Amino acid sequence: MLGTRQPELYGHATLDDIEAMCAEAAEQLGLAIDFRQTNAEGELITWVQECRGRAAGIVINAGGYTMTSVALLDALLAVDMPVIEVHLTNMHRREGFRRHSYVSRAATGVISGLGPAVYTLALRAMAGLIAEDDA
Amino acid sequence: MLGTRQPELYGHATLDDIEAMCAEAAEQLGLAIDFRQTNAEGELITWVQECRGRAAGIVINAGGYTMTSVALLDALLAVDMPVIEVHLTNMHRREGFRRHSYVSRAATGVISGLGPAVYTLALRAMAGLIAEDDA
Amino acid sequence: MLGTRQPELYGHATLDDIEAMCAEAAEQLGLAIDFRQTNAEGELITWVQECRGRAAGIVINAGGYTMTSVALLDALLAVDMPVIEVHLTNMHRREGFRRHSYVSRAATGVISGLGPAVYTLALRAMAGLIAEDDA
Amino acid sequence: MLGTRQPELYGHATLDDIEAMCAEAAEQLGLAIDFRQTNAEGELITWVQECRGRAAGIVINAGGYTMTSVALLDALLAVDMPVIEVHLTNMHRREGFRRHSYVSRAATGVISGLGPAVYTLALRAMAGLIAEDDA
Amino acid sequence: MLGTRQPELYGHATLDDIEAMCAEAAEQLGLAIDFRQTNAEGELITWVQECRGRAAGIVINAGGYTMTSVALLDALLAVDMPVIEVHLTNMHRREGFRRHSYVSRAATGVISGLGPAVYTLALRAMAGLIAEDDA
Amino acid sequence: MLGTRQPELYGHATLDDIEAMCAEAAEQLGLAIDFRQTNAEGELITWVQECRGRAAGIVINAGGYTMTSVALLDALLAVDMPVIEVHLTNMHRREGFRRHSYVSRAATGVISGLGPAVYTLALRAMAGLIAEDDA
Amino acid sequence: MLGTRQPELYGHATLDDIEAMCAEAAEQLGLAIDFRQTNAEGELITWVQECRGRAAGIVINAGGYTMTSVALLDALLAVDMPVIEVHLTNMHRREGFRRHSYVSRAATGVISGLGPAVYTLALRAMAGLIAEDDA
Amino acid sequence: MLGTRQPELYGHATLDDIEAMCAEAAEQLGLAIDFRQTNAEGELITWVQECRGRAAGIVINAGGYTMTSVALLDALLAVDMPVIEVHLTNMHRREGFRRHSYVSRAATGVISGLGPAVYTLALRAMAGLIAEDDA
Amino acid sequence: MLGTRQPELYGHATLDDIEAMCAEAAEQLGLAIDFRQTNAEGELITWVQECRGRAAGIVINAGGYTMTSVALLDALLAVDMPVIEVHLTNMHRREGFRRHSYVSRAATGVISGLGPAVYTLALRAMAGLIAEDDA
Amino acid sequence: MLGTRQPELYGHATLDDIEAMCAEAAEQLGLAIDFRQTNAEGELITWVQECRGRAAGIVINAGGYTMTSVALLDALLAVDMPVIEVHLTNMHRREGFRRHSYVSRAATGVISGLGPAVYTLALRAMAGLIAEDDA
Amino acid sequence: MLGTRQPELYGHATLDDIEAMCAEAAEQLGLAIDFRQTNAEGELITWVQECRGRAAGIVINAGGYTMTSVALLDALLAVDMPVIEVHLTNMHRREGFRRHSYVSRAATGVISGLGPAVYTLALRAMAGLIAEDDA
Amino acid sequence: MLGTRQPELYGHATLDDIEAMCAEAAEQLGLAIDFRQTNAEGELITWVQECRGRAAGIVINAGGYTMTSVALLDALLAVDMPVIEVHLTNMHRREGFRRHSYVSRAATGVISGLGPAVYTLALRAMAGLIAEDDA
Repeated sequence: MLGTRQPELYGHATLDDIEAMCAEAAEQLGLAIDFRQTNAEGELITWVQECRGRAAGIVINAGGYTMTSVALLDALLAVDMPVIEVHLTNMHRREGFRRHSYVSRAATGVISGLGPAVYTLALRAMAGLIAEDDA
Repeated sequence: MLGTRQPELYGHATLDDIEAMCAEAAEQLGLAIDFRQTNAEGELITWVQECRGRAAGIVINAGGYTMTSVALLDALLAVDMPVIEVHLTNMHRREGFRRHSYVSRAATGVISGLGPAVYTLALRAMAGLIAEDDA
Repeated sequence: MLGTRQPELYGHATLDDIEAMCAEAAEQLGLAIDFRQTNAEGELITWVQECRGRAAGIVINAGGYTMTSVALLDALLAVDMPVIEVHLTNMHRREGFRRHSYVSRAATGVISGLGPAVYTLALRAMAGLIAEDDA
Repeated sequence: MLGTRQPELYGHATLDDIEAMCAEAAEQLGLAIDFRQTNAEGELITWVQECRGRAAGIVINAGGYTMTSVALLDALLAVDMPVIEVHLTNMHRREGFRRHSYVSRAATGVISGLGPAVYTLALRAMAGLIAEDDA
Repeated sequence: MLGTRQPELYGHATLDDIEAMCAEAAEQLGLAIDFRQTNAEGELITWVQECRGRAAGIVINAGGYTMTSVALLDALLAVDMPVIEVHLTNMHRREGFRRHSYVSRAATGVISGLGPAVYTLALRAMAGLIAEDDA
Repeated sequence: MLGTRQPELYGHATLDDIEAMCAEAAEQLGLAIDFRQTNAEGELITWVQECRGRAAGIVINAGGYTMTSVALLDALLAVDMPVIEVHLTNMHRREGFRRHSYVSRAATGVISGLGPAVYTLALRAMAGLIAEDDA
Repeated sequence: MLGTRQPELYGHATLDDIEAMCAEAAEQLGLAIDFRQTNAEGELITWVQECRGRAAGIVINAGGYTMTSVALLDALLAVDMPVIEVHLTNMHRREGFRRHSYVSRAATGVISGLGPAVYTLALRAMAGLIAEDDA
Repeated sequence: MLGTRQPELYGHATLDDIEAMCAEAAEQLGLAIDFRQTNAEGELITWVQECRGRAAGIVINAGGYTMTSVALLDALLAVDMPVIEVHLTNMHRREGFRRHSYVSRAATGVISGLGPAVYTLALRAMAGLIAEDDA
Repeated sequence: MLGTRQPELYGHATLDDIEAMCAEAAEQLGLAIDFRQTNAEGELITWVQECRGRAAGIVINAGGYTMTSVALLDALLAVDMPVIEVHLTNMHRREGFRRHSYVSRAATGVISGLGPAVYTLALRAMAGLIAEDDA
Repeated sequence: MLGTRQPELYGHATLDDIEAMCAEAAEQLGLAIDFRQTNAEGELITWVQECRGRAAGIVINAGGYTMTSVALLDALLAVDMPVIEVHLTNMHRREGFRRHSYVSRAATGVISGLGPAVYTLALRAMAGLIAEDDA
Repeated sequence: MLGTRQPELYGHATLDDIEAMCAEAAEQLGLAIDFRQTNAEGELITWVQECRGRAAGIVINAGGYTMTSVALLDALLAVDMPVIEVHLTNMHRREGFRRHSYVSRAATGVISGLGPAVYTLALRAMAGLIAEDDA
Repeated sequence: MLGTRQPELYGHATLDDIEAMCAEAAEQLGLAIDFRQTNAEGELITWVQECRGRAAGIVINAGGYTMTSVALLDALLAVDMPVIEVHLTNMHRREGFRRHSYVSRAATGVISGLGPAVYTLALRAMAGLIAEDDA
């Protein structure tokens, strides 16, 4: 349930830690997740497209593609399911070109600036959105 | 622990509902909260200033003042404690002038677009930040 | 029926004159009006919010808040009734920053540049809009 | 007394209705009016120039030329008499390029967004301005 | 069926050639066309207005008015039928001010940069759109 | 040899005066001139097109169309002969939107801000350009 | 002869339909085509580069990469053959950031807003361009 | 004689210190001063309006309202007396949005970047301006 | 009477030619001129200042300083006499940054794009302005 | 201690007056000053560079170079001592291009709009800054 | 030691030539290099990430990705070693959108516009930087 | 062969060091160089003009004039020989106004951000360009 792209600021160990945190949170919330990482824009888009009919929602950290990829935006608009955008840092306190996000135009919600906790908060919010849809 | 300003889109009942949700979440997280609402920019600034030495953090929905109040920004920068900015809707999907936020420049994190759940997610994130600071 | 804010360019006498003109015009048109003046943005917003369920429409001269108050815009959008924005001078012939209006985004109509007559013209237009709604 | 250009949004019947409304209002106000409609920018400019010495004021709806015609602006600045700009819709709630008006730079006042009533309100305001000038 | 305006870059012979090409293509496609040329913005607008109830669609090359005429845009929006905008050259490879088009905001489709063939391609596309509407 | 458009700032007498000045200067310089005035953009464009093969150069004061007419620019680019743009006032000392000129992009030279003398200076400069071409 | 990238808005069936339409049109026009689809920017660029010496022209729908890929623009400029850019929708009627196209700077022509027919119209135009080159 | 607003960066002690410095300087200069502080935009505007007829000049540090309050600007323009704007820090060396000041448009002079001394320097300058007016 | 700065595009011979042309034209017009050339902004400003009380007007070609020197603009505004700005080429047809001129803000008139003749045309226009002032 | 550049608006007598005022104020404050004036950007920069090791601070009125000289800014940044920028007029009330100052980026403080008194106020402020540094 | 991406402007032979030039220069400088070329943004990013701990520096020609890839910028910022950006042409003399470079924000130095020599100059500079680091 | 301007950030010793490095590199490359330094824009321009017919190329560090001097740009465009622009620091990592360079518009190549080595790298590149020209 999770299409993610981990910025190069974080070593493999840390990426594993986040995956573990997500797995644990998902189990508590009764969700099944699929945790993925890639550097390739095309692969990221393909993963988003594959979510249709297979996933109930997408939690995405698109790294540098957040600000530049209209193709990714088009893919997210097309899958037609809840999308939650996450960022480890608060983009609004960094350089100007990081304050613009194409992903936000397709996102249901955005959670940023709270470190690795953004992933588990996003899973929790996603669980709520899915429960609402089922109701 | 909560300086909030509820947009006029929501009737009194709803505002009470959100306050109840927050109270319940705070109790679960072991937090004491102070839930407030005002239309006045000056009063909002005074509440932020009063947080110094009395609160461990601020969760704020500054409504229309989000985009216009440098005075509020200055107050948030001065209190020197974790600030989480919340919005019921995803500002990035609304008119252009709503995509700019002064509050974000002082915020540790931002959570938006997930409806009333943004408040309880913010309380949960705040509990984590406070625990970290204590460690 | 009237939430107004008189710019500081006009002494008390003049403000009274305008109130008298409005009262007379309202009587002729069969309207009951409530004429108010304040310097405080928060109070102005509260008055707008109080109109819901109590007034049939709003005639507003927001003075300097016209160009800066997103919070006021949000309040006007929320009350969901006819709003007529008035200005004593034609803003388009003054400095550049006066040509932008947040209030206009919520207004049904705008009347400007015709001196105190903008108030009575607005009352007349409002009477027409209310008659239409009743039909 | 009226140089007008009716947008193509309105069929002939409606244009006739507006002319009739204006004629009736003018009679009540003791004004003689000359109601005209054209698609040609040059003809509109010529009509404005002909007003000098023959009319006491101009009520103008310049349609699409409002935002593009510097030549029309120059003509309005040159006739040196009261000019009231009217629009059936509130331009500030439409696309960005409609929010700019050259005509406003020459107008004494602007009335917009109140439907066909903008014409009779403008005539009423014009009657006031002429009375003032005579005093 | 065709309101066109031929840029002054092309002599009369060439304009006749294009008219002949269009006539031939129209015959093949079973369409009746009315081929017109003018330098006057007002006349062009009048022709567009006359299409209502008489034509099934408009193919238009508005030359220099493409970038400047809001009045033409309003006319095209009002006729409420398929509009195809054509340009002999690719505007995106010319000076900056030619890359903006008001006509495009009212057009169903745009065909540019392929020389005189843009007219016959547009007729073919129009035939398809009309067939669809009839279905 | 002269396609001109006199702004509405000048009465008929003055326009006649300028025509007389031009006629006298032309005679001294051995030039035949054709002095014209119109309010219509389309007619102005047609006059420019008619210059091809009939005139050796164009002196043009396009009034308000200077800043707005891409169609006029296209016509001037197409005639392929010396063009001198004149203005009675120095556009650079007036409002910002008057500092931009489409006509300048097609002009060989520009003379402005020196009152009616700009016409005779332009004729003198044109005589020099024609002499050069003949050499 | 066709390097294309199909947006994710269209399911597999539809993509197959377009391929069939193109194959049929190509046969009628006596053209051999190679129909391709990818999500990866790098692969799209490689396909463009491979066209050199193997294809007579390119019909391209670059989806979201249209507005963001300078690398794709460089590839198209380098192959030095006719390029026709197509879009199913009229980009000028969508969000502002879709109105800019890097691909257009390298395109001979652009066809947009006419649905799947843009592909067959482009093939027809390409056949004309190739015939011209051979002449 | 002093309408001031102290930014929240300074504790109560410091504010008292500045008031004491001002009182001492005023005594030396033979001026009577009225030292005030508020967080509310509306109250600040009311104080400015009250200066008319009661004060000879205004020294103002408008904090965050410096950059956002058109209403405050209108009040300062209306009182028609010398206004000196002060800032403890040099705004031009801080973030971009702090370099714009509405207050400066109404100020006789501006003194910034020299710490608390800006208040006494302003009083000294004000004493000079008042002496000049009396002469 | 002439403070000029010759661009480095022209060798000494050519500069001498222009000086000779100017001397001859001045003699015909009954003017005494002082022809100067420098590369130094400071010297150019000093020359402009020296004109006060010694010259009746200034013809200036400020080369690259045209677009950058506010100091030169201040000097020209201060001398308070007719100023005619000349350029050998039409700045509006060159790179964008050449279309802005500080000198134009102080100039009575501007003559450009007609080669060395701009100097003699300017002298002729200056003679006319001086004659007018004497009348 | 004073690198100044007097704008050309002021005759020699006035410049002498200011120098005398500064000398008197310096004597009262126990400061030794070196008062200089030049029109040359290069000389001004050299003077600033010479201050290193010889002066305790710089009071500078850079006239027109204020808005254009990055070279001057670099020199001021390099000398590493208190810099106070002064202007006789309030730049914020003049033309737009005067509201930008490169000098302000290197200045400790700015004093403007109070006439010749800006120089003595600056000396007084400088005395305070030097005393602080010595403490 | 070299992560490079060769623009499509250069055939295979030329790319081999550059590789040979680099190999020869590296041998002279006592450097070991790894010369790579790809069209894929993701692969380029992966190569940059792999440099950590394996290379002493990066010489990069990012082609079209230079202006568009924030993801590449993030990768270069993260590897924390000297980066030299090279371009065969001087980007500042090409189209406007080529003058912006994300890569420059992470680069130690930039060398452009000198043809294939930019690669060997960059290797020479890199040898110097590495020697400095070792000292 | 070298017109250079050393920023004020560097003491005399360092400037001598760079001159010595350049002399040594020039000797190795078989070039004769003329190393110069000035603070005056006018002198720098004169030196550039003197290069015509006397030098084979120019290596230039124009310091603060890089971003402001159109006059210098005009001089460099006029000498018509290879120009290499050097900067000790990478301008793209400093303040925004340093990222714009007029000199780059006239430069064959640009080398920046590598400290004093930029001078010897530039000499080496210049030797290559001269050898090419001779071939």
